[in-house]
Amino acid sequence: MNVNFAERAHNHNFKLDPIVRSLLDTDFYKLLMLQFVWKNFPTTHVTSEVHNRTVRVRLAERISAEALRDQMEHVRGLRFLKSELVWLAGNSFYGTRQIFEPAFLDWLEHKHRLSDYEIHEEDGQLILRFSGLWSEVTMWEVYALAIVSEMKTRAALAELNELELDVLYARAKTRLWDKIELLRKVPGLRISDFGTRRRHSFLWQEYCVQAMDAALNTNAADQRFVGTSNTALAYKHNLEAIGTNAHELPMVLAAIASRGSDEELRQSQYRVLELWQRSYGGELLIMLPDTFGTTQFLEGAPPFVTRWTGERVDSKDPFIAGEEYLTWLEQRGEDPRKKRLIASDGLDANTIVRLHEHFSQRIRFSAGWGTLLTNDFRDCHPRGPEEGQATFEPISMVCKITSADGIPTVKLSDNPGKASGPAELVERYRKAFGSPVLEELPILV
Amino acid sequence: MNVNFAERAHNHNFKLDPIVRSLLDTDFYKLLMLQFVWKNFPTTHVTSEVHNRTVRVRLAERISAEALRDQMEHVRGLRFLKSELVWLAGNSFYGTRQIFEPAFLDWLEHKHRLSDYEIHEEDGQLILRFSGLWSEVTMWEVYALAIVSEMKTRAALAELNELELDVLYARAKTRLWDKIELLRKVPGLRISDFGTRRRHSFLWQEYCVQAMDAALNTNAADQRFVGTSNTALAYKHNLEAIGTNAHELPMVLAAIASRGSDEELRQSQYRVLELWQRSYGGELLIMLPDTFGTTQFLEGAPPFVTRWTGERVDSKDPFIAGEEYLTWLEQRGEDPRKKRLIASDGLDANTIVRLHEHFSQRIRFSAGWGTLLTNDFRDCHPRGPEEGQATFEPISMVCKITSADGIPTVKLSDNPGKASGPAELVERYRKAFGSPVLEELPILV
Repeated sequence: MNVNFAERAHNHNFKLDPIVRSLLDTDFYKLLMLQFVWKNFPTTHVTSEVHNRTVRVRLAERISAEALRDQMEHVRGLRFLKSELVWLAGNSFYGTRQIFEPAFLDWLEHKHRLSDYEIHEEDGQLILRFSGLWSEVTMWEVYALAIVSEMKTRAALAELNELELDVLYARAKTRLWDKIELLRKVPGLRISDFGTRRRHSFLWQEYCVQAMDAALNTNAADQRFVGTSNTALAYKHNLEAIGTNAHELPMVLAAIASRGSDEELRQSQYRVLELWQRSYGGELLIMLPDTFGTTQFLEGAPPFVTRWTGERVDSKDPFIAGEEYLTWLEQRGEDPRKKRLIASDGLDANTIVRLHEHFSQRIRFSAGWGTLLTNDFRDCHPRGPEEGQATFEPISMVCKITSADGIPTVKLSDNPGKASGPAELVERYRKAFGSPVLEELPILV
Repeated sequence: MNVNFAERAHNHNFKLDPIVRSLLDTDFYKLLMLQFVWKNFPTTHVTSEVHNRTVRVRLAERISAEALRDQMEHVRGLRFLKSELVWLAGNSFYGTRQIFEPAFLDWLEHKHRLSDYEIHEEDGQLILRFSGLWSEVTMWEVYALAIVSEMKTRAALAELNELELDVLYARAKTRLWDKIELLRKVPGLRISDFGTRRRHSFLWQEYCVQAMDAALNTNAADQRFVGTSNTALAYKHNLEAIGTNAHELPMVLAAIASRGSDEELRQSQYRVLELWQRSYGGELLIMLPDTFGTTQFLEGAPPFVTRWTGERVDSKDPFIAGEEYLTWLEQRGEDPRKKRLIASDGLDANTIVRLHEHFSQRIRFSAGWGTLLTNDFRDCHPRGPEEGQATFEPISMVCKITSADGIPTVKLSDNPGKASGPAELVERYRKAFGSPVLEELPILV
């Protein structure tokens, strides 16, 4: 009697179930960085590449290049809606209105496009290469990662029957809620969702974000779920959009500066901050010091850097990196209680609680909770850990700028396992930045 | 775009969401017993009563008598559908066709009605009393218990928001699937659903039954989920309807016989079997010897009883009762490997596996899995075990015949906690049956 004929017909006939449904479905920092690139580097050309660090998962055997291209082309066909642009113009982010310039929004509406790309298969992996103006390439990062991540999910879902699908999600929800119950016991936490790029799926990320908001923000005076890096979800669910900047900025500026002296190369990491603070202030002045090694970054930082609001720790043990930042602030006469420390690398609920307990009395601590919020399906498979079946484990997939104006980029990182770039250039950078050889940490996600 | 307007309108306006939607939504043994009563005791009057043994759960504070009456009246308005009657007539049960006589089915279609009843509040409890011909009263048992059980569920559900409801069911599904995974590892199991009367809800029972069928019956040569006691679910999902008979038969026959001598009283427990085997054979010859104590039942049983197919254990430790049955069979020269042992009291997956391992090499063992299959929501509450909130814990609720033709009924049981009847009559029965005073076992559900 109550058949929804249109829905049934659509479900059995749709051509494409899009993964990215809006250009806002990206990390907020990509929009901040896009404005930065549009303003400061409008003619810089870059190449970038999606790369799966979890080599045992042979993505090309699970995902067809053709279906991947269909999803990518769907994104290329998207435009920012008028309502989305009005929101970007009129909404306040981090308490500031008009963070995006009218000229930038006008460009976004009328001129912005996504670059061309190529898809290759190599050793069972799918390699995506993007090439074009930096302003055309940069936005691909999150769209492409989210697409590949969800296509991997869909391939695994397709092996399950209806009951097994139900069990899978019941287990994942049970796990999520167990984590949330742990977090509910700790007042004063500050957690953001950083899980767009390696999410299980868009709808699952949305579920996680709504669950966190409903469960952790019941007390108006203690809003523990601060917001989401996903701009579409922030827009849709009345949440704060969270994020500042990423490694691609120092990597590109270093590549350009590497034409010059070692000292020019080394100074490029601070040049990023100089340019950034021309456009942004306050809570957006969060430095990310680990691109070429945190210790050298802090030691060599010019005085203006100490006035920045905080630091995001991404590739170093956050307990060690946090202590290093606190010591550095105290040595430079800054009050850490006015600063912010953000951890964002491979966090899970228990680590977040431990970090909060360790730091929150001494510095404003917050956690960017990524893959283990939006894609923790470990041990949720209804058939158990059998050989050969496609699983739902998250993989460590990244999209990195590989060259800028023809010059290869380099990342040293605090974790040598995350270093990238041609060997001879890595040597040059190590000499210029004086980075010590560090202990390799396991990369979870 | 895809709004189902009719469904939305209905969801916001319906008058009653019925709990019992078909007269088949009852345990199959009630239909077998109904035919037994219709044939042998068409003029016997009885009273019966729904009673909550879990006194700390004050049902009258959770369920309104008016809403309960609405549900009961809905059941009274139901009729067996033609398709249901055709199925009862034409389907084979336990491998036998025409288990129901045409005259009985004709009576069921045209004459059967449910008796009158009264609802009282007493000490925070709701007491339902039924009175009428045995054939009008008997069917109320499962309908009434399932209604009260689901109304208690709905009262607790009404306190939760949408996310919490989702978490609740995710946790319950996770728990169910963990149990199923345990059962999947044990070949040769034989399990039936016996969980209608104390189910969380009809839809949840249906989910559990479908999950068991899908997960445990993948191998045609090892069908571990044998079927369900719920006739509506057996009908709807192409499963075997399972069940034989219950304590109400020996209780009523004993009450009637108690007008006579102690010996007549004692013999009444075997009289039930004599009458039963006039209508039924094969796998339906399962005795339930614990009504007045298993040990005296077996010791005094006439020779024809040893030829019965099996025994159901309901109130004694099933390991002890099973051994007692095996010894009894061997003493009487019967081969236990041709007999069946059914355990059905407060079972859970781990006990089922232990019982199977203990007995299955020596006797055909099967488990009737009840409340902890269809209503295990312990520790699933999304707000945790807080004081004062309505919970989803199953309660030990029973519906027992309290008198027959004006004479009170008595049950001694192997577990004194399950004994019932007026004290002076219990004394008389103890003398007649010679039941020892046994150790009281905790009643879980």
